Amino acid sequence: MTTRHPRPIQNPQNWASAAMPPLQRFLSGCHADFWSDHDGAVANYIPELGKADPAHFGISLATLDGHVYEVGDSRVPFTIQSMSKPFVFALALDILGSDAVERVIGVEPSGDPFNSIRLNADNHPFNAMVNAGAITCSGLLRQARQADAFDTIRDALGRFAGRKLDVDDAVFASESTTGDRNRAIAYLLRTSDVIKDSVDDVLAVYFRQCAVLITARDCAIMAATLANRGVNPVTGEQVVTPYAVSRTLSVMTSSGMYDFAGEWIYRVGIPAKSGVGGGILASLPARLGLGSYSPRLDGHGNSVRGIKVCEALSAHYGLHMLNRSDDARTTIIADYDIGANPSRRSRRAQERDILAAYPDAVRVLELVGTLSLSNVDYVSRQLAASARPQFVIFDLHRVTAMTQAGLRLLAELFHELADFHVTVVLSGIRRTSPEWQEITARTGDIRNVRDFYLLDTAIEWAEDQIVYRYGGAIDFLETTELAEQPLLAGISEEERHELAALAIIRHYQQSDRILSSGEPAHSLFFLRSGVVHVTLPDGIRLATLTAGQCFGEMALLDPVRSADVTADFSATAFEITLSDFERFRARHPKAGERVMRNLAQLLAERLTIANARLNLLAAD
Amino acid sequence: MTTRHPRPIQNPQNWASAAMPPLQRFLSGCHADFWSDHDGAVANYIPELGKADPAHFGISLATLDGHVYEVGDSRVPFTIQSMSKPFVFALALDILGSDAVERVIGVEPSGDPFNSIRLNADNHPFNAMVNAGAITCSGLLRQARQADAFDTIRDALGRFAGRKLDVDDAVFASESTTGDRNRAIAYLLRTSDVIKDSVDDVLAVYFRQCAVLITARDCAIMAATLANRGVNPVTGEQVVTPYAVSRTLSVMTSSGMYDFAGEWIYRVGIPAKSGVGGGILASLPARLGLGSYSPRLDGHGNSVRGIKVCEALSAHYGLHMLNRSDDARTTIIADYDIGANPSRRSRRAQERDILAAYPDAVRVLELVGTLSLSNVDYVSRQLAASARPQFVIFDLHRVTAMTQAGLRLLAELFHELADFHVTVVLSGIRRTSPEWQEITARTGDIRNVRDFYLLDTAIEWAEDQIVYRYGGAIDFLETTELAEQPLLAGISEEERHELAALAIIRHYQQSDRILSSGEPAHSLFFLRSGVVHVTLPDGIRLATLTAGQCFGEMALLDPVRSADVTADFSATAFEITLSDFERFRARHPKAGERVMRNLAQLLAERLTIANARLNLLAAD
Repeated sequence: MTTRHPRPIQNPQNWASAAMPPLQRFLSGCHADFWSDHDGAVANYIPELGKADPAHFGISLATLDGHVYEVGDSRVPFTIQSMSKPFVFALALDILGSDAVERVIGVEPSGDPFNSIRLNADNHPFNAMVNAGAITCSGLLRQARQADAFDTIRDALGRFAGRKLDVDDAVFASESTTGDRNRAIAYLLRTSDVIKDSVDDVLAVYFRQCAVLITARDCAIMAATLANRGVNPVTGEQVVTPYAVSRTLSVMTSSGMYDFAGEWIYRVGIPAKSGVGGGILASLPARLGLGSYSPRLDGHGNSVRGIKVCEALSAHYGLHMLNRSDDARTTIIADYDIGANPSRRSRRAQERDILAAYPDAVRVLELVGTLSLSNVDYVSRQLAASARPQFVIFDLHRVTAMTQAGLRLLAELFHELADFHVTVVLSGIRRTSPEWQEITARTGDIRNVRDFYLLDTAIEWAEDQIVYRYGGAIDFLETTELAEQPLLAGISEEERHELAALAIIRHYQQSDRILSSGEPAHSLFFLRSGVVHVTLPDGIRLATLTAGQCFGEMALLDPVRSADVTADFSATAFEITLSDFERFRARHPKAGERVMRNLAQLLAERLTIANARLNLLAAD
Repeated sequence: MTTRHPRPIQNPQNWASAAMPPLQRFLSGCHADFWSDHDGAVANYIPELGKADPAHFGISLATLDGHVYEVGDSRVPFTIQSMSKPFVFALALDILGSDAVERVIGVEPSGDPFNSIRLNADNHPFNAMVNAGAITCSGLLRQARQADAFDTIRDALGRFAGRKLDVDDAVFASESTTGDRNRAIAYLLRTSDVIKDSVDDVLAVYFRQCAVLITARDCAIMAATLANRGVNPVTGEQVVTPYAVSRTLSVMTSSGMYDFAGEWIYRVGIPAKSGVGGGILASLPARLGLGSYSPRLDGHGNSVRGIKVCEALSAHYGLHMLNRSDDARTTIIADYDIGANPSRRSRRAQERDILAAYPDAVRVLELVGTLSLSNVDYVSRQLAASARPQFVIFDLHRVTAMTQAGLRLLAELFHELADFHVTVVLSGIRRTSPEWQEITARTGDIRNVRDFYLLDTAIEWAEDQIVYRYGGAIDFLETTELAEQPLLAGISEEERHELAALAIIRHYQQSDRILSSGEPAHSLFFLRSGVVHVTLPDGIRLATLTAGQCFGEMALLDPVRSADVTADFSATAFEITLSDFERFRARHPKAGERVMRNLAQLLAERLTIANARLNLLAAD
């Protein structure tokens, strides 16, 4: 299992400087269109906020593969204010445990403005998005972390943004001096026993948290981290758990836009949060994070231009979190058995016969993309719909993510297969990967899950098991003579003796490099005992060869080696130099023709296999 | 662009009857676990509902590829009741237009129980999920369709379920007789001018709509239709628009579970709706639809066991609509230019030289899965990051869906490319497909979007354009001699004359089948003029050949033809029978050896191309 890397930038000045990705063009268009909107006013209930430049306007959009689009004043700092609420709520869920948090903070919308002092029937805050709930979150963290509470919060906000964040001390001081309504809320919470520490200590954390400085770019990355199940798409860090993220987005959905939450979700359909500093963030799960900064606010306290950017993004592209589609059937990119597509190991007659008798004993499913519940369910039904194999190989090298649901269902599928004595083999996943840890944590009790990083090795191994199971033996010590070489089939015994006299027997140790690509090709090799493998310079394994097969035979056509050959175990080979062979061909033109015909035959067989595999991958 | 079909069931009794997909096992486990729960009571506010069998318990789950899981009493009919509300709301949005509906029905949660008589500040219903809103929907449809209103609703519900639905006349009569609270609500709506028709006419529609009979299986398919952007996954019919679906799911999210909507979405995270008939449906976008039937209700009027099934499904698999992941980078399954991976057309020296000078003039992006905003954005950035090509081929044959956002961004990308004189070529999409209509509707003003169904044909066409553009000519009428045949390279002039005397010149018309796979192979062909193509029996195109190339040459190795050869234009070829050729080889063993060597060389080149392509598709 690997992550694909973007193609490197080859010639940026040629194309990138002139054309731009359409999303960049769209955001630039929004910036130009809404620039002239001068509605609304800069917040002044905290005197220091009133000093913001009303002309500032920055937009940023972060994608989940870590690209960040930016337009205008996207690097101008402003205070986070209420946009801190979802992140601190998520942090509290992770640090304190969901029970401790959910016991004192509700999850129903209040229908009131953000600064409502009303509590619910239990004398608890309605939810974590109104001030009462946010002050409670800060209070819970103050209680747990004492004097370190604010640093804990600032560090976490910094991990959401992917950089260290500063505090605007002037705004903090201004807010502390003038925040009487929040002081009233805090005293009410303390009288209801929701806050245990002193009101001053709790509000010191809350006011400082609201004065953390971010930019529209930070805002986009923070929103994208929520959209990406808690993983910052730029730094790759898992900042909070998927549980905390989904619950935070739930509360943003039902209560993030206060008294017009229902309409926001109906019309725009992207969980969002605004702050009186002029920021607004929107987080579309599995898609993107949007950040905007423009300090002129409407009557609800939301940035006028920021709201317009969110609306335009949703309307223009028809983005809405409930307008989703997916197709589980694209999960399987190839589905075959060893009858249709055997390993690249050249096998001898007895092995070939056994494998031919059990063409569907080994089933291979090559999977691609995200393994979600739908995708794994589809895979499980495809397996259940056909004859039961003895081995199922799941190739995961194109799998880029697994959801919790997908992982759980996959583990259940492995248990189901184990119950029916089907061996599960995984390829394309490294034991050091977190996904491997997750799989084994759920399937540790199954003894017959095997793994091989290379798919071809996995197929070879499973084929070997079938050979053993049905009475075959694979004897790597056996020695063969030139008479068994397919490349020399059809030449006379005398001619073969003449060739044998020209051959030198070579001995190799395990891992010896026998041939290297790029070297001049001076000789042909006939494997006498042991096993070697042939790989391309980029590491792709072309074939595994056992005694009785030739290698380096392309020297007959090409003066330079095009592949590496390495001994898998100790091995011996007959080497015949090309010049000796040329002289032999000159003396025996019919034998020469026969060898060339045999070579063409071998190549035609390899081409047939390669085309079969291409057709599998191009399946319509 | 095509839809993949599931692998056919080969041997069901072997495996399917014993093992089961894990999701089936999970649902069976739920059924067994919750069976023993006898909490709650059958609804009795309508006398006829009280007759339901409290023991009944059925569960069904429909996936978006159209598979339906069922457990227990999943085919027992019951009345739909309030579960009709979301479907009739979606229908009203589509039939009457969103403006007409949204003008009189709000979208904010009321915080009240379902049968609340309270209206909002505008004297309108709070939303379409409370009775007042649902009666208003029925009223709007009554006003528009008069006496046909109910049939319109019943037909639509049937299309959601994928079958014709009946009405329980006894329940309807019972509800009509006893529905005084709904009568009160309807009169209040009429006095507020929200309902125009007579209360009796409107309630006749509403009560009948509530008495429509469905099963848990229907319920699952109806929910899956909402999860699938309005397309019934079993019948394939687009029942309502994606707009209506996303807005209906929005209202289900904010208000579907009445006064505990916030907690439901926080804890379970799947838009749901229940009915007092004992049904409950849950719709997880892009994943699944769940239906349950068990008539014992809790104090909120929700099926006790149904709620437990929803909770178990969400908790067990960590399913939550806001707990999503995706990876845009899996969209591109192969990305190459003609330098790395040319078409299968064998070209002559002048054409080869021109193409070799412009290896990155044609860029090919093979895409897979759903084209969403994220995916197309990623593609656009990959294009912008490299040197600008002259042609970009987008192969869509593995694309299974396009979201509205993806389509729009794709159209914008095509416009961006057109502005820079880059020609867009589409392959793998048929002009008869709805996606083609959508693309051309958005890009009709771009003159240089071309399409070819076969990717290889698209690459060939783009290569031809490069050849023309840089002074080359492709002369299909030109006649070549045997001397130009690579298969005969290196034999003497005398030998060639001898061969020429054995050859018969054959003439073919466009579309003539020259060779057919499975036939005995009696002769070799050397194309003298024109163009032919070689295809496998399953339609995969292996090569396009022009004058100067051979075909049927595998007769030298294999007594049976393995591919079809068809004339693309009128063509002529030299045919030499295998028996004549064998006699020639017997007389000239060195020439025979040389031909075999040439054949091995041709096969080695084809193998190199096939392996390069395999490596592209296996890209790590």
